[in-house]
Amino acid sequence: MLSEFDVICLLRERIEAAGTGRGDHIVVPSGDDAAVTDPGGATATSVDAIVDGVHFRRSTHPPAAIGAKALSVALSDLAAMGATPGEAYVQLGLPKDITENELAGIADGLGATAARSGIAVAGGDVVASPVLFLAITVVGHAPDVASFVTRAGARPGDALILVGALGGAAAGLALLEQPGLRKAVGGEKADGLIERQTKPRALVEAGCALAASGASAMIDVSDGLGADAGHVARASGVRLEIDLPVETICAGVEAVAEAMGRDPLALAVNGGEDYALLAALPEARLGAALEAVSKADDGPIVIGRVVVGEGVVLRGPTGREALTEGFDQVRSRALGGPT
Amino acid sequence: MLSEFDVICLLRERIEAAGTGRGDHIVVPSGDDAAVTDPGGATATSVDAIVDGVHFRRSTHPPAAIGAKALSVALSDLAAMGATPGEAYVQLGLPKDITENELAGIADGLGATAARSGIAVAGGDVVASPVLFLAITVVGHAPDVASFVTRAGARPGDALILVGALGGAAAGLALLEQPGLRKAVGGEKADGLIERQTKPRALVEAGCALAASGASAMIDVSDGLGADAGHVARASGVRLEIDLPVETICAGVEAVAEAMGRDPLALAVNGGEDYALLAALPEARLGAALEAVSKADDGPIVIGRVVVGEGVVLRGPTGREALTEGFDQVRSRALGGPT
Repeated sequence: MLSEFDVICLLRERIEAAGTGRGDHIVVPSGDDAAVTDPGGATATSVDAIVDGVHFRRSTHPPAAIGAKALSVALSDLAAMGATPGEAYVQLGLPKDITENELAGIADGLGATAARSGIAVAGGDVVASPVLFLAITVVGHAPDVASFVTRAGARPGDALILVGALGGAAAGLALLEQPGLRKAVGGEKADGLIERQTKPRALVEAGCALAASGASAMIDVSDGLGADAGHVARASGVRLEIDLPVETICAGVEAVAEAMGRDPLALAVNGGEDYALLAALPEARLGAALEAVSKADDGPIVIGRVVVGEGVVLRGPTGREALTEGFDQVRSRALGGPT
Repeated sequence: MLSEFDVICLLRERIEAAGTGRGDHIVVPSGDDAAVTDPGGATATSVDAIVDGVHFRRSTHPPAAIGAKALSVALSDLAAMGATPGEAYVQLGLPKDITENELAGIADGLGATAARSGIAVAGGDVVASPVLFLAITVVGHAPDVASFVTRAGARPGDALILVGALGGAAAGLALLEQPGLRKAVGGEKADGLIERQTKPRALVEAGCALAASGASAMIDVSDGLGADAGHVARASGVRLEIDLPVETICAGVEAVAEAMGRDPLALAVNGGEDYALLAALPEARLGAALEAVSKADDGPIVIGRVVVGEGVVLRGPTGREALTEGFDQVRSRALGGPT
């Protein structure tokens, strides 16, 4: 069995080999009692944990996908603030039977995701645990606190735009759990949906671009569009009216939902884990914002507007209103995992 | 069963009721995608996770002690940097059978520890998990990066001082695991040793005072004095010569070790989890430093000096040299917990 020292060396080497962000703010990196940074401005900090059997399965998720997912989920929160990724800290709970190959894969996934987003791994902790978990802390930067976009700034008259497609992660999860559903959607589309579940990508560049374009409020769609739009409505003291065009729903979601006997719209807006971005923008900024994120893989698409009032009304492509509910991290166990 | 929202509300209310630190640097607290801070100087960040069956047991550790230990262990790293505690982020993995009372206790322990150290809980994440874990991130502050004390600054001629007593946490663990050992040491002393294991205290004030007094290097003794002194020797490129006076070893450790058939000195220097502070100081600063930390419960005591060379020589009260080995977080399972 590897010692703690061996594990840390292995992780550090593989992550560094992936070529992570430069860590411009880091003065003393991992290896001392704490990492020392010189932020020189404002910081946004978010933490996110994923656990075997709850957010992934060691048996079905490749190790690199586990590492990538853990960091991507955390980075998505920085994207939603419009923060420039700075430093990540990785806490790993390792079961006794973890293999060197699994560790290397997890490190590769962390490293590749760090490299793509420009974040540097500045520290971490490795502990024994009966179950594999990854608890990630990410710190993002901006010149001043006013540069960050919170959930609280949406104003009546603002337009709502969505970057990223909905329902893919939930449909991908269903395909992983019930391989028999593949025939409903076809192999290629099925693999694409499964990648949405196992390899979510944080829209870091889009988030920074929306912030720079003058977004008044922003959130990442992690719990489902209905629940997350509700967070913005509540924090901003406004009402969100959303009409989802058909292009906002991932190709194949409808077929998977129907094969499961579920409402496709409900799967798309309640499934969670899509890590799209929902932003509110004053009309005057809308053109520039759409241009700034025009290179995103999915969207941007104008999906509604902010009005006086409270709550969310969310209609699907047919005009039918969706019943919204969020993904509850504690009560629901997405994978029906061990208890 | 409580929902994620209920859990977060309960935790937030109890932690706030404990009167945590003011969070002077926090601009947007928990509740948005990320917590926004305005550091206005340099930061030191450390992460530490504790897991049921590895670092504590739900069955023997009171919930408040679990919350307190999780945060104390992380704060100890800030103490070792001489950082002023700023913000904490708490990631909780909660098993299905966790009770509202346990959650309340954990929150009370976190809150009381936060209040005592002056740190504010700025954010967190709550997820389902087959096993209870707490993964903590702490951020400390200083006016500039040079104000922090790393492991790398010890110079030949420096004196070594220890704040905090050794061996208590390891002896306390033995007493928890083998209640029959109580008669070797007596009930009152046994309870004191058990508190060293279940309720470690981070020496935050002493760490800040030592940094302000001109400490050249510092580390918290979490893996055992032998291993941690080795970290300082390696990082600083020096040799540490340590002669432990008898007062540096917790009362009762010798009796417990002998009843276990173990070497008391080995238990004291290899047991780990004592969260004492080892600091190197130029001779000219020693008097001021000893005065500055004179109010600490244990110590300060001059235990040796820094010389040219490498490695550590560590002698106990009788002059006998101790064989040192660290606490390996991955390979060893202190509590013989679940695998």
